Amino acid sequence: MTRPRFDVLGIGNAIVDIIARAEDDFLVREGLAKGSMRLIDAAEAERLYDHMGPAKEISGGSAANTIAALAGLGGRAAYFGKVAEDHLGAIFRHDIRAVGVHFDTPALHTGAADWAPTARSMILVTPDGERTMNTFLGACTHLTPDDIDEAIVADSAAVYLEGYLWDPPAAKEAFRKASTIAHAHGRRVALTLSDSFCVDRWRGEFLDLMRAGIVDLVFANQTEVKALYETADLAAGIEALRGDVRLAAVTLSDEGSLVVSAEKVTAVPATKVEAVVDTTGAGDLYAAGFLYGLTHDFDYGACAELGGLLAAEIIGHVGARSQSDLVDLARQAGFPV
Amino acid sequence: MTRPRFDVLGIGNAIVDIIARAEDDFLVREGLAKGSMRLIDAAEAERLYDHMGPAKEISGGSAANTIAALAGLGGRAAYFGKVAEDHLGAIFRHDIRAVGVHFDTPALHTGAADWAPTARSMILVTPDGERTMNTFLGACTHLTPDDIDEAIVADSAAVYLEGYLWDPPAAKEAFRKASTIAHAHGRRVALTLSDSFCVDRWRGEFLDLMRAGIVDLVFANQTEVKALYETADLAAGIEALRGDVRLAAVTLSDEGSLVVSAEKVTAVPATKVEAVVDTTGAGDLYAAGFLYGLTHDFDYGACAELGGLLAAEIIGHVGARSQSDLVDLARQAGFPV
Repeated sequence: MTRPRFDVLGIGNAIVDIIARAEDDFLVREGLAKGSMRLIDAAEAERLYDHMGPAKEISGGSAANTIAALAGLGGRAAYFGKVAEDHLGAIFRHDIRAVGVHFDTPALHTGAADWAPTARSMILVTPDGERTMNTFLGACTHLTPDDIDEAIVADSAAVYLEGYLWDPPAAKEAFRKASTIAHAHGRRVALTLSDSFCVDRWRGEFLDLMRAGIVDLVFANQTEVKALYETADLAAGIEALRGDVRLAAVTLSDEGSLVVSAEKVTAVPATKVEAVVDTTGAGDLYAAGFLYGLTHDFDYGACAELGGLLAAEIIGHVGARSQSDLVDLARQAGFPV
Repeated sequence: MTRPRFDVLGIGNAIVDIIARAEDDFLVREGLAKGSMRLIDAAEAERLYDHMGPAKEISGGSAANTIAALAGLGGRAAYFGKVAEDHLGAIFRHDIRAVGVHFDTPALHTGAADWAPTARSMILVTPDGERTMNTFLGACTHLTPDDIDEAIVADSAAVYLEGYLWDPPAAKEAFRKASTIAHAHGRRVALTLSDSFCVDRWRGEFLDLMRAGIVDLVFANQTEVKALYETADLAAGIEALRGDVRLAAVTLSDEGSLVVSAEKVTAVPATKVEAVVDTTGAGDLYAAGFLYGLTHDFDYGACAELGGLLAAEIIGHVGARSQSDLVDLARQAGFPV
């Protein structure tokens, strides 16, 4: 079999982040649960924006962050996601293409009867580096199976899907279509559980996807594993995960990560971080490093180490798109990228 | 006389910065003069954006950066500048109001025959922290004398004007109108020379403004002083400046700044900086500290020291809007803010 054109195809909600610093009492006043991602409508998006502090705009979206970082490592990457024909959409398209990602999903036309603007997530970063996300999905809800370009799915060694994609209803079918095509061509299908609130919304369906073999690899943090199995006992959650999916990578914040398979559980320590500035994107970058390794025949331990290295880089500054030369960073740490 | 409502009113080009890292050879390939600000048209803006790397969007504009920082110090601030009714315009308005600046200049209506979008400056930051700016003025060219709200000018202790405002033709008249009103009410009028290329474009008119007493205070860096008097000898430039304007603050990068008046020249050392990440906004923030001091009865040396403290803060990170609590920063350094 010839090497596929792309290492990883990411599919997710195409979002521009609007990032502002906020004090804890601002979250309290606004009734926001620290560390969560909540979905909001257009009116709430406008109201919150009026209240929040000065911001910077950076292209985001969980799977898009992963794919941008994978391209930054020199991986061959593609992305499917829906933006609108507006200025934020132009920003998103520019930024992901500028790092070398193949991105060609048609933008939602301005004239469409049910038009919605490009999605934005207002991210409030508290002094402890935690982020609280308020996402207006807008155009993302228009991603449909028609946006799944079969030739690209077939020609990608792995497909990476974000759990958040389960929120816009039409995207679920796009997700299933992508998985079916990928498996028909012998490709891997990975899913990130995204966040514990997303797991709460879609617990049954996520477990079905895993148990039915629609996904082969799951990315999750410890909170998401506990939420998935409704347990406070991480060990019990890990044990359950071993029976439900072929492979899982579970991140444990500053304690590193676990690579979990039916055969064994491997613990990989975290890369040391001097100061946590903003945890936005830590999971996304971990997945990028892991998937780069996986599609370049690294062993699982090395995949997890490269993931940890990238996660450590991203939490040292504001925003979930890297400001460093990731190839340099990985090479200095001894990875063959 | 009762204390005026505002300490400082800034008038300038209302711009959103689009900031990306770039290698030196990218500047060479694109034919860009490192460290300059050049004006570009809509077509060139689009072409360059297609070529440049992934970016972040942060509200900018030289005088607007100054005014935002002045508000961050607890100063009472107002701003006049022209945005369009578009997404970048909404970002600009949000960010400046969110720091407490009074900003009410009517946005350019979408239906206007000669409509132009909100201005953007594509700022390429090289590894040495230098920035090269490519500015599409768009809606800024529509700032006219009608946008100068007389009551606000009259009620501001100082008016701060950016030299860049001399580029959009209609803004010159707005500038002169503001100065006339300010002086009629016994207010101070300050001008920043903006950059040496701007000085080259408007040398004669800037000198006229100074010699005619239309401006009382000039902010400039050493390159701009040399450009203004077409000399390689800074000392000669400073000497000429003493004869042309009542007061000048001249920044000397890591050598601090000079406060220049007919009576004397006072040298103030620079605040130490650990690592220069991006020099964007250093002059803007210096002016903010200086103007805060000036409108709070600091002596000139203390004005320059507070300016230097803010300049040092801003060059430690990407972007020209501060990420720190400026009141805390100034208090820790012993300033009575």
